[in-house]
Amino acid sequence: MSPTRAERIRIDLADRSYDILIGAGILGAPESYDGLPRSADALIVTNTTVAPLFAAALKTALGARHDRVHVVELPDGEVHKDWTTLNLIFDALLARGCDRKTVLYALGGGVVGDMTGFAAASYMRGVPFVQVPTTLLAQVDSSVGGKTAINHPMGKNMIGAFYQPLRVIADLDTLRSLPRREVAAGLAEVIKYGPIADDGFFAWIEENAEALVALERAPLVHAVRRSCEIKAQVVGADEREAGLRAILNFGHTFGHAIESGLGYGEWLHGEAVGCGMVMAAELSRRLGLIDGSYAARIRRLVERCGLPVRGPALGAERYLELMRLDKKSEAGEIRFVVIESPGRAALRAAPDALVREVLAATCA
Amino acid sequence: MSPTRAERIRIDLADRSYDILIGAGILGAPESYDGLPRSADALIVTNTTVAPLFAAALKTALGARHDRVHVVELPDGEVHKDWTTLNLIFDALLARGCDRKTVLYALGGGVVGDMTGFAAASYMRGVPFVQVPTTLLAQVDSSVGGKTAINHPMGKNMIGAFYQPLRVIADLDTLRSLPRREVAAGLAEVIKYGPIADDGFFAWIEENAEALVALERAPLVHAVRRSCEIKAQVVGADEREAGLRAILNFGHTFGHAIESGLGYGEWLHGEAVGCGMVMAAELSRRLGLIDGSYAARIRRLVERCGLPVRGPALGAERYLELMRLDKKSEAGEIRFVVIESPGRAALRAAPDALVREVLAATCA
Repeated sequence: MSPTRAERIRIDLADRSYDILIGAGILGAPESYDGLPRSADALIVTNTTVAPLFAAALKTALGARHDRVHVVELPDGEVHKDWTTLNLIFDALLARGCDRKTVLYALGGGVVGDMTGFAAASYMRGVPFVQVPTTLLAQVDSSVGGKTAINHPMGKNMIGAFYQPLRVIADLDTLRSLPRREVAAGLAEVIKYGPIADDGFFAWIEENAEALVALERAPLVHAVRRSCEIKAQVVGADEREAGLRAILNFGHTFGHAIESGLGYGEWLHGEAVGCGMVMAAELSRRLGLIDGSYAARIRRLVERCGLPVRGPALGAERYLELMRLDKKSEAGEIRFVVIESPGRAALRAAPDALVREVLAATCA
Repeated sequence: MSPTRAERIRIDLADRSYDILIGAGILGAPESYDGLPRSADALIVTNTTVAPLFAAALKTALGARHDRVHVVELPDGEVHKDWTTLNLIFDALLARGCDRKTVLYALGGGVVGDMTGFAAASYMRGVPFVQVPTTLLAQVDSSVGGKTAINHPMGKNMIGAFYQPLRVIADLDTLRSLPRREVAAGLAEVIKYGPIADDGFFAWIEENAEALVALERAPLVHAVRRSCEIKAQVVGADEREAGLRAILNFGHTFGHAIESGLGYGEWLHGEAVGCGMVMAAELSRRLGLIDGSYAARIRRLVERCGLPVRGPALGAERYLELMRLDKKSEAGEIRFVVIESPGRAALRAAPDALVREVLAATCA
């Protein structure tokens, strides 16, 4: 199987710049890794679900680059995105005598990518790593931009680092193995880029929603590429989220509260974000920023992609309590990503009373 | 008690540049903190030994800068420099709803500084922090330069980050409370700067060793200032230890093996470094780089400062095994900091057989 010619998108971050390669069959192609460091040791970090599917192909592709390619399999799922699992990576590195030139390869979805990235940021105070995302969500969002983290019992992604990979290898063939629910979760992050940055892209997703759900090749390539382009632009302008970058968190303030309130793993991250966008659109409408018909379009598109549009009944006070812990909060004031007009987002506080109205209107 | 006018040394690291303030009584002087961010929340991280001595004074000095100054006390000692203790900092931050503007203050020795720095690097992917070192070792070495870490059962400082503080406040008055053993441990890191960078400073320490052990004010100020100047210069030239910075690890390759081999906390870090310098000097001599009289001067000075000069009998193979895990190792080859000539150091591999001879000559 000869891989398709990969498309290449550049993330511009001075001496931390890197490329995203997008294509079919590129994970197993040795040339995808050309130009990366040829260290003696490499460690593929993956999970028990992904390993049987792709670990052997990646290991073979890397065989000529490293003397030893080790593999560590983590347990699968957001519930394992914690210190105990992270430590499995450190144990594997130290048990194999891996030095500070060792390259880590994150093979899996967002959880594997976030944990591998944080392990790479921290092992011996920093070793290089490569993202090989195998879920749609990771390909369009979490593998790009250098946000790495683990969860804390009191909040999602509370402990982590900004740490950029050397490259992202997004192989579209890996998506064929995804359960329907995971595809939908990934589409939530694709949809996100429309309202916050590109109204034309939003309309295009509306036209192609069913084709995307079915993972049709041509629309899929466009969706992944355009998502990565927008993300690259935003991250290039604001790597450490001093301002602009926060707009990528559209739907995430509500979404993180859902994930944390229900217990990690109950809803997929993308499901919570999908529902969170419906809530954030409703908030934007009630703040007088967008009209009801645009909020309804967002809600309809989320629904067509197979994502939940009604939040779980955690109670408004619990939502508010969880959202006050959000990383964008300042001095206890929650700051929401709202849509100011189609294709443009901003960060805003909102009165608790209004947020309660939004929750009443959008929760089960 | 009005503080002495503080001396100011600049660490030059572009947008991460900062000052070291050195003086007596400056910890409790509000003006020491002028220009630092005035966040709503601040967290003083300290330990159960240091808290009763200085936490109240620091809290008072910060009272006008922050709405809330929280304090968390960690258990004291190198044996607690691990994830469990680090997590006490995250728990404290999250339980108090601290946001990403929160300033952390590390009040204590090297262990508190290393853990607070790593917590600051990782909490919400990075919050600002200030070093307030209260041991000689921390004032002349560990609080300066942005190396932060925790230990892993398989190796010292294996998990951490390069993360610079906003300022270092070195109050010489805090040293008066130090046990004799801790003063000696700090002097090990002072001595270090002579052989690696400044032969004149080495001769000065030889002349003033007893005065330094007695913590006499004038020589103490000079020792702390000159140590910080040398460290500032080295770190400014090589922040992330791509090359030059490794010379600051003189004595540390052997020293880390001693600490790790005996179990953390058995010997103080500075004690292990003192003995490690004797070993590294002996290695330099056997490599034909320095003569026996210079190696003997290093040994004598270490001894005069009250530090051990004979290593524990771990066995040569155990030493070698532990040193192969050193962060400077590459592809299993240990790289030692050796003295090329008085005041000049370099990184070098050495034959195992020669290292065994050194160990035979320097261990109990």
